[in-house]
Amino acid sequence: MTDVAIIGASMTQFGERDGWVCDLLAEAATACLDDTGVRADALDHLYVSNMASGEFEGQTGVPNALAHDIGALGAYTQRVDQTSSSGGAGIYAAWQSIASGASDLTLLVGGEKMTHRTTGEATDVIASLTHPHEYKHGVTLPSFAGLTARAYLDQYDAPREALAEVAVKNHANGVDNPHAQFRKEINRETALDSPLVADPLRLYDFCPITDGSAALLFCPVDVAREYTDDYVRVAGVAGATDTHVVHERPDPTTMNGVVKSGERAFEQAGLSPEDVDVAELHDMFTILEFLQYEDLGFAEKGHAWEDAMDGTTARDGDLPINTSGGLKSKGHPLGASGVAQGYEIYKQLVGEAGDRQVDAEVGLACNVGGFGNCVTTAIFEVGA
Amino acid sequence: MTDVAIIGASMTQFGERDGWVCDLLAEAATACLDDTGVRADALDHLYVSNMASGEFEGQTGVPNALAHDIGALGAYTQRVDQTSSSGGAGIYAAWQSIASGASDLTLLVGGEKMTHRTTGEATDVIASLTHPHEYKHGVTLPSFAGLTARAYLDQYDAPREALAEVAVKNHANGVDNPHAQFRKEINRETALDSPLVADPLRLYDFCPITDGSAALLFCPVDVAREYTDDYVRVAGVAGATDTHVVHERPDPTTMNGVVKSGERAFEQAGLSPEDVDVAELHDMFTILEFLQYEDLGFAEKGHAWEDAMDGTTARDGDLPINTSGGLKSKGHPLGASGVAQGYEIYKQLVGEAGDRQVDAEVGLACNVGGFGNCVTTAIFEVGA
Repeated sequence: MTDVAIIGASMTQFGERDGWVCDLLAEAATACLDDTGVRADALDHLYVSNMASGEFEGQTGVPNALAHDIGALGAYTQRVDQTSSSGGAGIYAAWQSIASGASDLTLLVGGEKMTHRTTGEATDVIASLTHPHEYKHGVTLPSFAGLTARAYLDQYDAPREALAEVAVKNHANGVDNPHAQFRKEINRETALDSPLVADPLRLYDFCPITDGSAALLFCPVDVAREYTDDYVRVAGVAGATDTHVVHERPDPTTMNGVVKSGERAFEQAGLSPEDVDVAELHDMFTILEFLQYEDLGFAEKGHAWEDAMDGTTARDGDLPINTSGGLKSKGHPLGASGVAQGYEIYKQLVGEAGDRQVDAEVGLACNVGGFGNCVTTAIFEVGA
Repeated sequence: MTDVAIIGASMTQFGERDGWVCDLLAEAATACLDDTGVRADALDHLYVSNMASGEFEGQTGVPNALAHDIGALGAYTQRVDQTSSSGGAGIYAAWQSIASGASDLTLLVGGEKMTHRTTGEATDVIASLTHPHEYKHGVTLPSFAGLTARAYLDQYDAPREALAEVAVKNHANGVDNPHAQFRKEINRETALDSPLVADPLRLYDFCPITDGSAALLFCPVDVAREYTDDYVRVAGVAGATDTHVVHERPDPTTMNGVVKSGERAFEQAGLSPEDVDVAELHDMFTILEFLQYEDLGFAEKGHAWEDAMDGTTARDGDLPINTSGGLKSKGHPLGASGVAQGYEIYKQLVGEAGDRQVDAEVGLACNVGGFGNCVTTAIFEVGA
């Protein structure tokens, strides 16, 4: 198996953007190639992580359009879809392309264009990822999140304020991310007093609807130095499903897709949760940050909320979580989000995270599809 | 790099089917696992090749639904989309999963459910894969096919009857395929007298709209014998784009995606076109069979039509093409078609092709996305 490096990364401004998704993808792709000094026509593979360009924009075949628009004529292209974890699935696919020897240079670009649709329309598209058995009963992901948050608070005797603290922390981090959709601090009261959405969750427990794109460039480790002095090694990457029908899970506060993908990724990397210095978790809803934090082994079950309350997960804490601002403040353009997690970890590990910089040699990204229906976890370390 | 084997294959009845796409996928998946005696919960990876479940059925997240419905809980799942070559892209993705060591057992299932929509609706979804630069002018793939066929006939002084002969041959093959949508012989006059669609192409130059699914099971070659006595080795597989804007191509009768993916696959396999005993080509339109036949090196440019006219590509000829009946007679459920090409080659190489059986040790499948916008070519050989 060929050892895999990431040699470049980029992301666009997240928020409300003009144009169609391919314009955003091209912007990120070109910035990533420029960052590394690679020409588009040198690419072997070009992957696009995108959930729903057909549903949102009436356009398919986006990877081919992107190859055309950036001048990657001849490269093999493919769309990677794993709903809201399409970006993480793209990292896994790009890793496989290099590790298998199929490609010596793979560009992964994730993106989504959503804000031109109403919130109701966007929610409908996202809800279409649930199993028809549940979908026909009107279930949406926010409703799952409310039920899960209630179960967590009750089961572990956690204070409601702990969820607000996740929003406060991620908004504080987002202030220093020039690409974030929201760059404003909030306080606990703002979060706790915001409109109720799915009891006990309120507006500030939810990520926004976002346009944006991010890109990562992969090659074999043994040629990484030909492109750049600073690279990141993909130490482990894996994915796993949980039950697609959420109500079949024995414990709503455990996401088995996170547990299994984490175990597999740590085993491949030969590392353990204690080795991780910084992590991006999929905080589509504040409660999800706690579940992933525990299911990846960063805390015992039922104790993640304590690490949020005591500052362990703040930027100056022992294990900074979502230094990018997370989905909460940075935004969540579905197919881009997992790639943007990789961008943040890359920037932290190569020391280019600017005002968000923390001291880190090992980073982790966990990207959750649906309500944990399929999850990918990737572990990165500073190139030797 | 781990050497990759295919150890099982299945396909559903193609045609007008009830249910939603996941029902078809589950039928093919279960048949493929049963064929090999493998339990669904043993799968590491589960890939679904599907172009447009969201657009055709309003449902996304199909790979997770499939994992649920067949009992593959825990497996990593992902949708592979490369428009009409999603199936071939799935073969490439499944190959990479095994070759990279990410998976020891990968099930690929391709499928599409289309016939519940009108022909106009289905054509609109398919046309959405063209670049917006062309799409907004109303271009559809059949119109490209008509223009290309006219150019081919003029450029190489080929008779119109040669195109009809492709339809006649593929319908004759389909008669012996129990899964084919159409199992009826036609003669040259029927094809030549059918309604005009895109001059010079007529109704019988086009594949139908189809529901269906097909599956292939992959593992490392060195454990293939633990599952089955007869397996097929993936000798080479590769993909390549051509210009996404079709009118930018210097010669409309050459598909550079076919040329490049073929060259790459042959190089990886250490084989040449002369070594191929049987091939499935993407005859979405009759003219495409000629282009691929030439662009893969089976004939000099401008001479494929002669091999169709003299019987070289018939089932009892020197190089049988589309023994399955091809897309023309078997049907073309977008995401399933590339996988079903693999099914046919697998069955031919392991000697289970029934009345369609030919003498073959090396087979090739070429799956065309869009109008050659991205193409995958896979070469298979009998397991040693």
